[in-house]
Amino acid sequence: MKLSYNTWAYSSFFVWVPAYTLDDTIARIAKIGYDGIEIGAAAPHAYPPHLSADRRAQIKDLLQQHDLKLSSMLPAPSGGPGNNPASPYIEERRATVEHYKELAEMVALWGGKTLIYLPGWTIFGTSRRQAWAWSREVLTEVADSIAHTGVTLVIEPTTHDTNLCVSADDAIELMQDVNRPNVKLMFDTFHVLWNHEVMTDYAYKMGADLKHIHMSDNDRLPPGRGVGDWPALIDALLDIEFDGYLTMETGFHRRGIEPDEDARVSLEFLRPLVAEREALRGIKPNSK
Amino acid sequence: MKLSYNTWAYSSFFVWVPAYTLDDTIARIAKIGYDGIEIGAAAPHAYPPHLSADRRAQIKDLLQQHDLKLSSMLPAPSGGPGNNPASPYIEERRATVEHYKELAEMVALWGGKTLIYLPGWTIFGTSRRQAWAWSREVLTEVADSIAHTGVTLVIEPTTHDTNLCVSADDAIELMQDVNRPNVKLMFDTFHVLWNHEVMTDYAYKMGADLKHIHMSDNDRLPPGRGVGDWPALIDALLDIEFDGYLTMETGFHRRGIEPDEDARVSLEFLRPLVAEREALRGIKPNSK
Amino acid sequence: MKLSYNTWAYSSFFVWVPAYTLDDTIARIAKIGYDGIEIGAAAPHAYPPHLSADRRAQIKDLLQQHDLKLSSMLPAPSGGPGNNPASPYIEERRATVEHYKELAEMVALWGGKTLIYLPGWTIFGTSRRQAWAWSREVLTEVADSIAHTGVTLVIEPTTHDTNLCVSADDAIELMQDVNRPNVKLMFDTFHVLWNHEVMTDYAYKMGADLKHIHMSDNDRLPPGRGVGDWPALIDALLDIEFDGYLTMETGFHRRGIEPDEDARVSLEFLRPLVAEREALRGIKPNSK
Amino acid sequence: MKLSYNTWAYSSFFVWVPAYTLDDTIARIAKIGYDGIEIGAAAPHAYPPHLSADRRAQIKDLLQQHDLKLSSMLPAPSGGPGNNPASPYIEERRATVEHYKELAEMVALWGGKTLIYLPGWTIFGTSRRQAWAWSREVLTEVADSIAHTGVTLVIEPTTHDTNLCVSADDAIELMQDVNRPNVKLMFDTFHVLWNHEVMTDYAYKMGADLKHIHMSDNDRLPPGRGVGDWPALIDALLDIEFDGYLTMETGFHRRGIEPDEDARVSLEFLRPLVAEREALRGIKPNSK
Repeated sequence: MKLSYNTWAYSSFFVWVPAYTLDDTIARIAKIGYDGIEIGAAAPHAYPPHLSADRRAQIKDLLQQHDLKLSSMLPAPSGGPGNNPASPYIEERRATVEHYKELAEMVALWGGKTLIYLPGWTIFGTSRRQAWAWSREVLTEVADSIAHTGVTLVIEPTTHDTNLCVSADDAIELMQDVNRPNVKLMFDTFHVLWNHEVMTDYAYKMGADLKHIHMSDNDRLPPGRGVGDWPALIDALLDIEFDGYLTMETGFHRRGIEPDEDARVSLEFLRPLVAEREALRGIKPNSK
Repeated sequence: MKLSYNTWAYSSFFVWVPAYTLDDTIARIAKIGYDGIEIGAAAPHAYPPHLSADRRAQIKDLLQQHDLKLSSMLPAPSGGPGNNPASPYIEERRATVEHYKELAEMVALWGGKTLIYLPGWTIFGTSRRQAWAWSREVLTEVADSIAHTGVTLVIEPTTHDTNLCVSADDAIELMQDVNRPNVKLMFDTFHVLWNHEVMTDYAYKMGADLKHIHMSDNDRLPPGRGVGDWPALIDALLDIEFDGYLTMETGFHRRGIEPDEDARVSLEFLRPLVAEREALRGIKPNSK
Repeated sequence: MKLSYNTWAYSSFFVWVPAYTLDDTIARIAKIGYDGIEIGAAAPHAYPPHLSADRRAQIKDLLQQHDLKLSSMLPAPSGGPGNNPASPYIEERRATVEHYKELAEMVALWGGKTLIYLPGWTIFGTSRRQAWAWSREVLTEVADSIAHTGVTLVIEPTTHDTNLCVSADDAIELMQDVNRPNVKLMFDTFHVLWNHEVMTDYAYKMGADLKHIHMSDNDRLPPGRGVGDWPALIDALLDIEFDGYLTMETGFHRRGIEPDEDARVSLEFLRPLVAEREALRGIKPNSK
Repeated sequence: MKLSYNTWAYSSFFVWVPAYTLDDTIARIAKIGYDGIEIGAAAPHAYPPHLSADRRAQIKDLLQQHDLKLSSMLPAPSGGPGNNPASPYIEERRATVEHYKELAEMVALWGGKTLIYLPGWTIFGTSRRQAWAWSREVLTEVADSIAHTGVTLVIEPTTHDTNLCVSADDAIELMQDVNRPNVKLMFDTFHVLWNHEVMTDYAYKMGADLKHIHMSDNDRLPPGRGVGDWPALIDALLDIEFDGYLTMETGFHRRGIEPDEDARVSLEFLRPLVAEREALRGIKPNSK
């Protein structure tokens, strides 16, 4: 099983400082020992309007030099542009469609296969059915537009952050409603724990459609530092033959976190655990 | 002394839900009894690229209908676009200049006079002097470009969020370096308290150049709910003849806050306190 | 990498009791196993006006007898004399210049190479630019006056204690402004952690100009007893080829701390950690 | 009963920032409504070597202009010079004698009558009897030297800070040993509470010899904010016909305290309490 680290902790989203260039971030994450990197589309790293073709080519080279794979990308929701596919404002929904399309191009350029889709949230005054319909439209249009890229969109339910697609069931239903071959599923353990649900339930429910996962203990602590049942989760992922990246999405939520430490601590906890659970099934560990 | 409420708590910045339309937000803030509203340039409220001319006119009407004055506006920093004037990437700095220019037009259209300038933060690898130079250039260009609007930029030092302009001294120096008649000062009490400094020191240091203020107790609690010495601050503002808006910037930092309650609690604490301190000087209270 | 212990915990600064003679302190610190000692210029240890030539010679002998190297010295700021180079009172600034010159003579006499320079703090009513100018003048004059001693001044930024030179950037700028070969840099991990910044950032930013370091976990706990990421810091210091003393500055901030214990606990944590990190790079550990 | 405020909170002793000039401090303390001010001999306020004759005259004028009486002065112990009368080093003891003599001259010049004597602390290796003898010698010499000034030395026992003269009994014994008409007593409620003793016991034991008092709740909180039994203490002071100043010595022990607030809160608590207790005895309140 491969490990990836999300770049928020090194960027200015959510917390503005400390922040490092994407060059620095790639070097550090690779040095710490990760297989992959999940790049968030936020300044100063990867906000599409800020990246020239040359810069995009440069990033591609950096990834290769450091032998770091792009596990995935995702937009930075909210903030100025919002990127809420369920917004009552058509301007925001249109801009969100275009943003996802740009991101898919970047994912493909950098050799990745996975783009996280955040279904959005209802603004008070919008019925949930209307918001759902809008989000489904956006997702469908994006999925069709990017079919040529080979990139798969993975729907992320979020309990703490939103109110539209919050559970495994919600995500499954949205995937079914959209019904496209390049639309699959993911989940984020932080959100499962925040809503006091069971992490393995999500794995088994999503099954073969689970293509990506965000790993975080409660309170955005690195996995292993909180209450999550990590051995059980790894076993469940092995059961369903999950072959995506275990991607840490931690260390970005408050001032005072050292990103390198956050990344290292997660790796030091998960690598041995994954190796141990795999060994029990006769699977050789990932050699990196 | 007039009271205003910042819209973050009703928007999707920082926390995505709950979120209300700007229409709803204006109505609620007016109903609670505020004199003014500080509109943050975030979806779903006021991200310039999403607002057509008609929509902008509509918002102007809404403010008038509800007898709510636009005290100020500010950008939503970080997130996707960043809006960091000290970014090492010229694309981000140029976009930030344009963003501030657009915001100044919106402030003027809606009858306001104050636009908050966030000087930005250094990305690791950029020297502080270089970051300062970039920020000064952006601020100078923006100030000159918007001179015709009658809008004043107010520099906000932030200890918790940034590392470039963090103290009263930093803000004063930046204002002096830029040296434009439409560039003045503000401060945010949350940041003063976070750095364990004295709120009245900021008021006295900034003196006649202090045109705006963000009010928040420690930990973004409504004023009065924490350790801040509010009587002393009001007295200091009266001493320096501050004539801007006391603007609450609270209630947006975590899930679970009810925006109306946050707004109401602050007003219920500050109105009587302001009236009491003004009465001691023979000043009649604001009649709203 | 060599370890040193600062004498505050054994002196009457900050906390008056318990207090030990410098003779006693040297013996204890040597016995615990330190390579060096950092002597603070406070009674009853090393306040220059109290030390006759004979006493100074005696201290030199004591250091040699106990095979303890003088890693550094520093003044006791504030208290009666203040020693604030940014004081608005010329009497205090002149006295501070003379004090640093005396300390440099003592450092040289006792075989040391490093004297810590505390840039001072602004008194309310002094602009930060004026305070900076005064501190720069003091530092420049001291640097030139002591050029013959072979002692290097190291600028210490302090977030918790001051408001003039608080960050790595501030210290770097002051060093650049003064521009003397015998003026370099240091940092104190307590201050980095207090301001919720990243310790390794300071090391990398200061690079080859980093000549000294104060080690302390959050809240002046001995390294290892708090939240600091010590492996990462040691690695960063090895990366930049730091060849100064890791100097503990702990145990002095409240009544009830046993100095010997504070010294021993830090050593027991750091010696093995340093050895481990050095071994990973094929460096033989310090033999003491 | 008259109220005074000690200047440490406005100085750089113990905590370096925030700090205000003595001019500013006198103005603020007077404005808040105090009868008197207790000036600590620390930079940037009143370190004798830094004060020219002109400056001393200026301070005298400032006190008169603001109608603020000098209730007392005290040295800043420890730090560089130590000022420990029980020091094993004769240089420090001699310097301490001279320092107290200078302070007495300043007290007299500024119209005060009270100078606090801190008996000092034993350095490990000095027997308590030897330390006591040294302190008694210093106190005796100082008392005789300043007899012409009309200033009374008041011995302050301190439990938290020292180990030589810590209780009411210690102070009484030292006064008896020295046996001079201008050597009397005081106590500090913080130290009484810290050692879990009874405040009124100190008042009754010291009786007519009690000429001064430091007021502080536990943990250096302003009186009224902690566990101290203030009505009982005021009653006891009235019983013994105490006619000195109730002098707050708070607000100086950690970063983050706003001095004006600390001063104001104490006054707002004590004035009404004193007036109430005095009224019960038919004493008219102090008219300031």
